Amino acid sequence: MTQDFRIGVAGLGTVGAAVVGMIARRAEALAAATGRRIAVTAVSSRDRNRDRGLDLSGIAWFDDPTALARSAEVDCVVELIGGAEGPAKATVEAAIAAGKAVVTANKALLAHHGGALAQAAEARGVALAYEASAAGGIPVIKALREGLPGNEVSRVYGILNGTCNYILTRMEREGLTFEACLKDAQALGYAEADPTFDVEGFDTAHKLAILTSLAFGTAIDAEGVAVEGISGVQPLDLTMAEELGYRIKLLGVAQRAEGGIEQRVHPTMVPKSSAIAQVMGVTNAVTIDADAVGELTLIGPGAGGQATASAVVADIADLAAGILRPTLGRPAAALAPAARVEMARHEGGYYVRLTVHDRPGVAAGVATRMAERAISLESILQRRVEHAASEDPHGRSGRPVPLVLITYAATEGTIRAALEAIAADGLLAEAPQVIRIERE
Amino acid sequence: MTQDFRIGVAGLGTVGAAVVGMIARRAEALAAATGRRIAVTAVSSRDRNRDRGLDLSGIAWFDDPTALARSAEVDCVVELIGGAEGPAKATVEAAIAAGKAVVTANKALLAHHGGALAQAAEARGVALAYEASAAGGIPVIKALREGLPGNEVSRVYGILNGTCNYILTRMEREGLTFEACLKDAQALGYAEADPTFDVEGFDTAHKLAILTSLAFGTAIDAEGVAVEGISGVQPLDLTMAEELGYRIKLLGVAQRAEGGIEQRVHPTMVPKSSAIAQVMGVTNAVTIDADAVGELTLIGPGAGGQATASAVVADIADLAAGILRPTLGRPAAALAPAARVEMARHEGGYYVRLTVHDRPGVAAGVATRMAERAISLESILQRRVEHAASEDPHGRSGRPVPLVLITYAATEGTIRAALEAIAADGLLAEAPQVIRIERE
Repeated sequence: MTQDFRIGVAGLGTVGAAVVGMIARRAEALAAATGRRIAVTAVSSRDRNRDRGLDLSGIAWFDDPTALARSAEVDCVVELIGGAEGPAKATVEAAIAAGKAVVTANKALLAHHGGALAQAAEARGVALAYEASAAGGIPVIKALREGLPGNEVSRVYGILNGTCNYILTRMEREGLTFEACLKDAQALGYAEADPTFDVEGFDTAHKLAILTSLAFGTAIDAEGVAVEGISGVQPLDLTMAEELGYRIKLLGVAQRAEGGIEQRVHPTMVPKSSAIAQVMGVTNAVTIDADAVGELTLIGPGAGGQATASAVVADIADLAAGILRPTLGRPAAALAPAARVEMARHEGGYYVRLTVHDRPGVAAGVATRMAERAISLESILQRRVEHAASEDPHGRSGRPVPLVLITYAATEGTIRAALEAIAADGLLAEAPQVIRIERE
Repeated sequence: MTQDFRIGVAGLGTVGAAVVGMIARRAEALAAATGRRIAVTAVSSRDRNRDRGLDLSGIAWFDDPTALARSAEVDCVVELIGGAEGPAKATVEAAIAAGKAVVTANKALLAHHGGALAQAAEARGVALAYEASAAGGIPVIKALREGLPGNEVSRVYGILNGTCNYILTRMEREGLTFEACLKDAQALGYAEADPTFDVEGFDTAHKLAILTSLAFGTAIDAEGVAVEGISGVQPLDLTMAEELGYRIKLLGVAQRAEGGIEQRVHPTMVPKSSAIAQVMGVTNAVTIDADAVGELTLIGPGAGGQATASAVVADIADLAAGILRPTLGRPAAALAPAARVEMARHEGGYYVRLTVHDRPGVAAGVATRMAERAISLESILQRRVEHAASEDPHGRSGRPVPLVLITYAATEGTIRAALEAIAADGLLAEAPQVIRIERE
């Protein structure tokens, strides 16, 4: 057996503590799998005195994570500090410069600086691994980077944020509002005090940007992701989805399209029968459409200390075994430039929920504006409003009522133009709700 | 860029032809991912004159695959001949002896000789890769071998045979008999002329034995798998399953139990809400229960030329990148001996469908025999038989009627003993049907 593989863990939060514990607990199995004893020899954290339930005796303590990254007693630096800039970035950069192997769970860092870091790591001849950065405990980075090299991928999509899926699941099952479910999610620790990053889709966008690069061999382009969160989803949308045979999920979708790769994050109607529609609560799922395998779906835990540590330790084991692959599946210099496709050119089905004045001719007016732009309607659903009948012999109250349209494939641009015309016609009592449909 | 990685493909059936085509089609991407140009330089097959739609010009032809395996023009031998013995085994052995990397899709070979071959490969310092040997295009070998080293696995189970799942799906959806569906599957090319190997569960058992070794770090023990196929499943069982909230799938299950690892293949009742119950047709799925990730499910194509080639090419790319891992996740010498657990000691829920004489006291007699062995019943379902009422004022005909029991967890041994007692009491008109229940 060769020398120990010495791990320095920077960041001792839930995940960091789980990693330290897991490496000790699985020492024998890890040594058998990698041919080396793996040992944590250094840690770094802001608070030295917090009780983490870990035996840190014999492990060097660094107040400065970049000093840990440069330590001669460390072969592999595990960055679990978080954040796209600041100490996390400085630690990873210092580790690469010092010729250490690096493992990180930091999706923000990867999404914003992955290309530059990959290039630096390759120039220095060290590995930069990041299985935990997307979809938590699901080994999807490995599947995309190593499992499908014979395939041309046409689409990757998934539920990449457990907080959002938990909220949507409860809204659907219990008919609650977004606000009520968010509050519960916060109480249960599934959502942060400031939930913006999760519920407005930015976390999903970071993860998606990483998956896109691996799936399509393109440079990471987090700024190119069109992002829309779930705070605008109404209980009525979930009721309508149910009635029409769909569920609503916050999906990240990367898809080959004319002229480039679409990257988008938004609430999405998925057919109830699809594998992804079955995924409930904080669970994550990723589906990969590729020419040889057809459809591949991976379902598992998207967060949590143990599940994330599982991904981190898998990376550590690969590096202990001496495996050195190009960070993003191919050398950074060989990545194709990201080619954005404007959302206006996105083509797909749409769920459009209008709030119209309950007057004669409104549905006809709406349908006409759609038809003018060659948008075909798969279904129209007008909801009866209970109080209406008593006020007018024709059952029309003039009051705002929902009118739901499901379109066949149309471009986002034509949908938006039709809705503007409908608004200009004075038919709408409220701004329209638009939710994209993703089919299998 | 280093030297070409030269591939010799032994066996040019559907999969072999797909591999040759895929390597050519994905040449650029494979070179970018692995740092080497991958090229097929030699092939071997029985029939030189068959048109496979491939351009084989410039590729050496070998009538004898073992000669291909020894050729100095080949760095990596891809064995796609099939069969546990004969030319497939001779080819892999010759390749290892000649110091070549080996890729195989041959589950029978691995199941029966995987331990010896792994030892030979490790002694010679060459890689033996076999992603395509289980669950076709799903990268489950990689997930188990490399994706979860921080986890202790407690159970692996899956739908590993597309033919059986296709037959059960059609039986369920259309109320057809096993025989009718098998005939259709044969007509569609999903089942062989002699379907025994698939429908009696042996194919699943081979794949399971491989997954068991990877999941638990034990020696492969194909002979230790308890095997029962789907030919005895009746349309009535599927109706009853539906009524009770289950679906019937042929599962391979490997599970840590007292004193060892249970390995079993049998028709199984799975809750309709489980991920695995959603898997229809020829699709495969594997669920891994492990301490850190909890539950991980992978769903994808289990067979087909392109999907299988996808797995083979993923292995080739790993080997081209110079990756050398112990074949079974840890050195063959470090595998724990297989520790079988007798099926009689298996504990779980059971579906028991009895065909009883429709007489007073029969249900009570059955329930008593169960109670004597401390078997608790979750539900009892007695099916009304249409013609019965007219013959007896109490609605009892004396004719054979189905009586279905769902038990809480009990050992297989006590269930079998209770059924023997019930049979000895003369209560049964036919042999009982017993289907195990697998819960999430």
